[in-house]
Amino acid sequence: MSGTLTLPRLEQERVVIIGCGFAGLKLARTLDSRQYQTVVFDRNNYHTFQPLMYQVATAGLEPDSIVYPIRKVFRKKQRFHFRMAEVGRIDADAKVVHTSIGAVSYDKLVLAGGATTNFFGLERIEKHALPMKTLVESLNIRSVVLQHFEQALNTNDLAEREALMSFVIVGGGPTGVELAGALAELKKHVLPNDYPDLDLRLMQIHLVEGSDRVLAAMSEHASAKADKFLRSMDVNVWTGLRVRDYDGLNVDAGEHHFKARNLIWSAGVKGEEMPGLVAEVAPDGRISVDGEAKVIGYDNIYCIGDLARMASEQEPRGHAMLASVASQQGKWLGQNLNRAAKGGAPKPFKYNDKGTMATIGRNRAVVDLPNWKFSGMFAWMTWMLVHLLLLVDFRSRLVVLVNWAWSYINYDRGTRLIVRKIKRPAPEPQAESEVVAVE
Amino acid sequence: MSGTLTLPRLEQERVVIIGCGFAGLKLARTLDSRQYQTVVFDRNNYHTFQPLMYQVATAGLEPDSIVYPIRKVFRKKQRFHFRMAEVGRIDADAKVVHTSIGAVSYDKLVLAGGATTNFFGLERIEKHALPMKTLVESLNIRSVVLQHFEQALNTNDLAEREALMSFVIVGGGPTGVELAGALAELKKHVLPNDYPDLDLRLMQIHLVEGSDRVLAAMSEHASAKADKFLRSMDVNVWTGLRVRDYDGLNVDAGEHHFKARNLIWSAGVKGEEMPGLVAEVAPDGRISVDGEAKVIGYDNIYCIGDLARMASEQEPRGHAMLASVASQQGKWLGQNLNRAAKGGAPKPFKYNDKGTMATIGRNRAVVDLPNWKFSGMFAWMTWMLVHLLLLVDFRSRLVVLVNWAWSYINYDRGTRLIVRKIKRPAPEPQAESEVVAVE
Repeated sequence: MSGTLTLPRLEQERVVIIGCGFAGLKLARTLDSRQYQTVVFDRNNYHTFQPLMYQVATAGLEPDSIVYPIRKVFRKKQRFHFRMAEVGRIDADAKVVHTSIGAVSYDKLVLAGGATTNFFGLERIEKHALPMKTLVESLNIRSVVLQHFEQALNTNDLAEREALMSFVIVGGGPTGVELAGALAELKKHVLPNDYPDLDLRLMQIHLVEGSDRVLAAMSEHASAKADKFLRSMDVNVWTGLRVRDYDGLNVDAGEHHFKARNLIWSAGVKGEEMPGLVAEVAPDGRISVDGEAKVIGYDNIYCIGDLARMASEQEPRGHAMLASVASQQGKWLGQNLNRAAKGGAPKPFKYNDKGTMATIGRNRAVVDLPNWKFSGMFAWMTWMLVHLLLLVDFRSRLVVLVNWAWSYINYDRGTRLIVRKIKRPAPEPQAESEVVAVE
Repeated sequence: MSGTLTLPRLEQERVVIIGCGFAGLKLARTLDSRQYQTVVFDRNNYHTFQPLMYQVATAGLEPDSIVYPIRKVFRKKQRFHFRMAEVGRIDADAKVVHTSIGAVSYDKLVLAGGATTNFFGLERIEKHALPMKTLVESLNIRSVVLQHFEQALNTNDLAEREALMSFVIVGGGPTGVELAGALAELKKHVLPNDYPDLDLRLMQIHLVEGSDRVLAAMSEHASAKADKFLRSMDVNVWTGLRVRDYDGLNVDAGEHHFKARNLIWSAGVKGEEMPGLVAEVAPDGRISVDGEAKVIGYDNIYCIGDLARMASEQEPRGHAMLASVASQQGKWLGQNLNRAAKGGAPKPFKYNDKGTMATIGRNRAVVDLPNWKFSGMFAWMTWMLVHLLLLVDFRSRLVVLVNWAWSYINYDRGTRLIVRKIKRPAPEPQAESEVVAVE
């Protein structure tokens, strides 16, 4: 009976949680192990701190600094089981979830699978663009970008060289803005030293946003400042422009066209698919839930985080897909379930908006607090402090701090390694005769 | 003319160096840029600090801590060109090297390609074993090992579970000994917390050495101590035993047989192949060179480091394949070439043996200095200090120090992530009926 998922059957109710992002992690932490047996599935054995992923993609941080082994988080929790697996079909009638390592029954099921990149059906873009929603994708961006610079050295075709060195970032949300800023810093401080043979003026960074301002979810003050910071760092900011097509080189944005070998897609996300569920799913893949986070139509299936669309009068389309929302929902649901086990009634979810922030570069960030908007160096230090404290453990904090201090003092980025194979093949070796002649 | 290797032609002689390990790196650093144009090829864009690779494989260090971007090392060097490429055929008549990105002519060529894993023609072992000679292979070991523990949770077949949790390390040199020790520490301190559902007594660690003692290249004192340390840490040390065959599960070592899903091969290395060269190549792939490191039969092709076999009366089979030898040869050849450019005569190579060391675990290491052999806690601290200082930059030193201090205080290892896909497929999902029944 190899490959069978075996879990002890306890007298406690079994809560199965699918996904260990911010929502799933917080929920599992909150659940009272005297009341519940907790089973967590994730396709990775680590939790990813997504807000710093763009720094991995731009060679600022080691991947190991921003992810955390799930087993380690829960090493002291009783009646807890983590299994690394892909989740397949949900059989709500039998109260069973099927996974790549077998099936498991549940008393309560919580969907916290989060979101994945949304290409809005643009298949050619999906084929050629670089998404950045997982750690592996971030590492891939790092390798592809550096590999393209290596290739730029080996071509005498100036148009191709420029394309290899050029970037179109689609989507002016926090991810796009932070990526564009980090690339601009690489262009200014790091790449000229690494590639003295290349003319870095050829490197173009375009940030393309469909709405009329970057950071559209933040205040107008933040948008205006971020825009100004980006322009001062030589980023070409385009608003009201949508990318329609991309073939790996030509970027079709309607009235504008760009040539770039690097197109990073951060224009949208959608909920992960959950097969077997007869639920109300919005076009963005989010599953409608009621005020208790129960999936409409089910009594023992819940959904929280990016995947959940908890509509209310204030938020008719559900809460924003933010780490802070997911985290608070995880804690809130856990407390409700703990309460329910003792016969208590659930409390309604109330999102406590502590503010949002984005960093553009050295000494340049924007912070929106509920009653205070500010930007610049103090905002940047606030951003760093908050993100350091949000990291799960002391080791990661120290390692990240060392790297940031190093980068700040030396105008450098430590980890620019091409470790993974790139998706696209390298150019063919030249025929011998031609090559020897050139040299 | 896309994909063409273009380098400026200067009045200085061009030295082309193949490989940027310890030998190539040191040589390129030493070459006087007023006298020579230096061109370095490597298949990676980073230099690997191989002595700490086993810590990456056993989740103790981030990969980024032990590798260093080559461009960064040489950012201030004049008349220096690095190209990331695979080197193909050498055309000594035309004085040209062919690479995956084009061909390049040379005045002097230095082969410093180092060594790769030697399976001694045992094809089935090569297919199933885990080598550990590159950073990517080390990361692969980390992922495979952790993945096997995840799989061990999902089987009720006790023999299979034991095999998934068991290790055979072939080769009792420093790599094998350090790996065995690190695995023993994982078994004792980390894995019991991560996998409370598994009986860690099932985890077997076998270290299999063909000669009559581990660390055969070190003193008998070091061998005896290392042997004692390993046994005290529950490692099964086998000497005088050779692994002959492995099918992914069954390890055939002649009079003994083991069952293990993890076989790490550190039993031997051989020189990287250099096609196109008509040279004297030993069975271990090393190229015979004269006292000036010139490949026998050529006047302007040199070979240094692991790849070179510089036979002498003291070392009839060439120097040991050690980082310290490679490093010293790189520096020595650089100085000789600098001298030659000014009309000076070459000096002979003399290896300055500063000692060898190996660490087995917390407070357990062995050090052989020329006049002093010692072991235990002081040896362990010596080992750590020396390795910290050998790291290329301050950032890496700090990050490694943080990780080591963390591990020491918390009996923990920070980076146990399954980031890469494993080579072998995961077990098939069970048929539904069977699975639901078990649970």
